[in-house]
Amino acid sequence: MDKITTYRQYVQDILKKYQALGDGSPVSEVETQLVFDKEHDHYQLVNIGWRQGKYRTYGCIVHVDIRDGKVWMQHDSTDYDFVGKFLEKGIPSEDIVLGFQSPSKRPYTGFAVG
Amino acid sequence: MDKITTYRQYVQDILKKYQALGDGSPVSEVETQLVFDKEHDHYQLVNIGWRQGKYRTYGCIVHVDIRDGKVWMQHDSTDYDFVGKFLEKGIPSEDIVLGFQSPSKRPYTGFAVG
Repeated sequence: MDKITTYRQYVQDILKKYQALGDGSPVSEVETQLVFDKEHDHYQLVNIGWRQGKYRTYGCIVHVDIRDGKVWMQHDSTDYDFVGKFLEKGIPSEDIVLGFQSPSKRPYTGFAVG
Repeated sequence: MDKITTYRQYVQDILKKYQALGDGSPVSEVETQLVFDKEHDHYQLVNIGWRQGKYRTYGCIVHVDIRDGKVWMQHDSTDYDFVGKFLEKGIPSEDIVLGFQSPSKRPYTGFAVG
């Protein structure tokens, strides 16, 4: 497989695994959706539901893009260390961009700048 | 086309049209992504970027699901009236669910309850 195909597979596998763990959702009434736009390489986990039928939960908890051969971590509100999982799988740090860090700080992250 | 195929097309067209208007993003540095998971019928517009290179914007502005033959408006932080556009296209109110309204209030919305 070429590099991008491999990265796509890794990202999808890792997000699916987290969803299967059931750790994304605080309660069973809140669904953790996998939202995979494979055509444009956007990969998300989104929490949606109503707690006790009254309190709304809505929000993306993880958002990863693949762009120009790099894996962009755009958003991560979990404690799961998705970036660590990407590194473990074998995606090198020079192919990972911490999109949630400002462009001026990225040179100091040890990851790609974009 | 069957009903669901038609609804998919309407939802995609309306979200694409809004993106093309450029009204989703407050500034040019913030990209409005179309995130379409056509396999699982999740359709989103997501704003991502850095204003002045310093201030992060990240968030889904619209999220629509198609589920069990119905169009679920899960989230809408715009003033565009997406539901109004769905009705104009011809999606009947009995096939639209306002997911952002609590289940107990949905019977009074004039739309489907789920």
